[in-house]
Amino acid sequence: MSPSQLSASIRKKQSFLCVGLDTDPLKLPAHLLGEADPVFEFNRQIVAATAPYSVAYKLNIAFYEAQGSKGWDSLARTLEIIPEGMMVIADAKRGDIGNTSRLYARTFFETYNFDAITVAPYMGADSVAPFLEFEGKWVFLLVLTSNPGSRDFQYMHDGQEALYERVIRTAESWQQQYPATLAYVAGATRSDELARLRSRYPQAWFLVPGVGAQGGDLHAVCRKLATPRGEILINSSRGIIYASQGEDFAVQAGKMAAQLQLEMAKHF
Amino acid sequence: MSPSQLSASIRKKQSFLCVGLDTDPLKLPAHLLGEADPVFEFNRQIVAATAPYSVAYKLNIAFYEAQGSKGWDSLARTLEIIPEGMMVIADAKRGDIGNTSRLYARTFFETYNFDAITVAPYMGADSVAPFLEFEGKWVFLLVLTSNPGSRDFQYMHDGQEALYERVIRTAESWQQQYPATLAYVAGATRSDELARLRSRYPQAWFLVPGVGAQGGDLHAVCRKLATPRGEILINSSRGIIYASQGEDFAVQAGKMAAQLQLEMAKHF
Repeated sequence: MSPSQLSASIRKKQSFLCVGLDTDPLKLPAHLLGEADPVFEFNRQIVAATAPYSVAYKLNIAFYEAQGSKGWDSLARTLEIIPEGMMVIADAKRGDIGNTSRLYARTFFETYNFDAITVAPYMGADSVAPFLEFEGKWVFLLVLTSNPGSRDFQYMHDGQEALYERVIRTAESWQQQYPATLAYVAGATRSDELARLRSRYPQAWFLVPGVGAQGGDLHAVCRKLATPRGEILINSSRGIIYASQGEDFAVQAGKMAAQLQLEMAKHF
Repeated sequence: MSPSQLSASIRKKQSFLCVGLDTDPLKLPAHLLGEADPVFEFNRQIVAATAPYSVAYKLNIAFYEAQGSKGWDSLARTLEIIPEGMMVIADAKRGDIGNTSRLYARTFFETYNFDAITVAPYMGADSVAPFLEFEGKWVFLLVLTSNPGSRDFQYMHDGQEALYERVIRTAESWQQQYPATLAYVAGATRSDELARLRSRYPQAWFLVPGVGAQGGDLHAVCRKLATPRGEILINSSRGIIYASQGEDFAVQAGKMAAQLQLEMAKHF
């Protein structure tokens, strides 16, 4: 998927919404537990209910991996039913020495045909480069995360810039060498930093988690990061998929997604 | 596994050797391809040949994940045949927000019963803590990696210390609060830094990759990091498991492991 395709989808739907399919088998509505693959059935109904309001889906791999090989089967089935034109992100936060990152890239981009993957920056250029070699794919590099622990290392300062600023500045220099789109993860809970990142990188794409359960403010994020072309995705996971844990879970998830889209539309 | 158990095993075998089962299905000897599970059969023979000379096995998860659910089955079978008393490490380099790291921890420590996992530090304390809550398990936190990209961020300096030094100093303050053993990954290619780390952290455990294919010097690592109790594991993957790609692959892997153990014995 190209940046202009994602832009067009965002403008058409007036939505930056990425729905996080962080599907925990222990939190499924009771009436689904008799299904052959309850995780897939849950995802199928969530996708059907939220697709009119969203432009992307993000699957946090931890939730599938935790189920062993069965979980990978649920993941593969879910990918098949996500409609064409949606960006589908593997939230995997991988990153390893070059020959190993290459394998992870093949797994997510070829075996599973994700459009994008999240990657951790600690190991530097040669741990990220193998993901960037795939034309049409996206890498979302962790820059500034939404969790409390982001303060431990990401704000370390060398007198000129913080580590998270160094990560994005360094990564921008990799972009030209590779065919994939390099984009960034920046948490909704850090709104002052988001404004600074946008002013410094006016054309960069950001994936923003942390709206909802983690306390980030949707309108602040839109004001600080949205551009005329879009260039942001705002992820909501628990706030949507667990809006209800009853038989009406999909209806309530759809309502929550619709409500978020309505708020987002104010920024177009 | 407790630190004293691992120490005892190291002293008894006069070996710091961790064999990396980074088993690439594309590099298997031709005569194994007819097996029902060629990756497992390869691992089974490698383990049988190298177990007399090693104290640990490290499985880089990328190689298994790349095969989809079949790969996870090969991994589970491999874990069953690694002899009692060996430390078994999931080289997964995971790290995510708290509730997600908790799931990864359950996957590797409970579903698969690994003794240890490698974890990436970028997201800070609450991304690492869930792994540390497991009594008897080990977390190997990435501190200084062996790849060229380690220079991009790990050496960033705030006037007092480099990022990799801050990671280990900060992590040492977490240790007391949790029942797991917190240990560190430091690459064999950084031998000056290894000496400094050992002098500052005389009792810390280090897992050292990068000997062999990546160019690290075995004796320099032993001189700089080994203590009377041991407190290091030295990983070799490609140098052992691909010592031959013919029918004699297991024999040659065993010879290579024996040779490494003989060199290591000089440091006892």
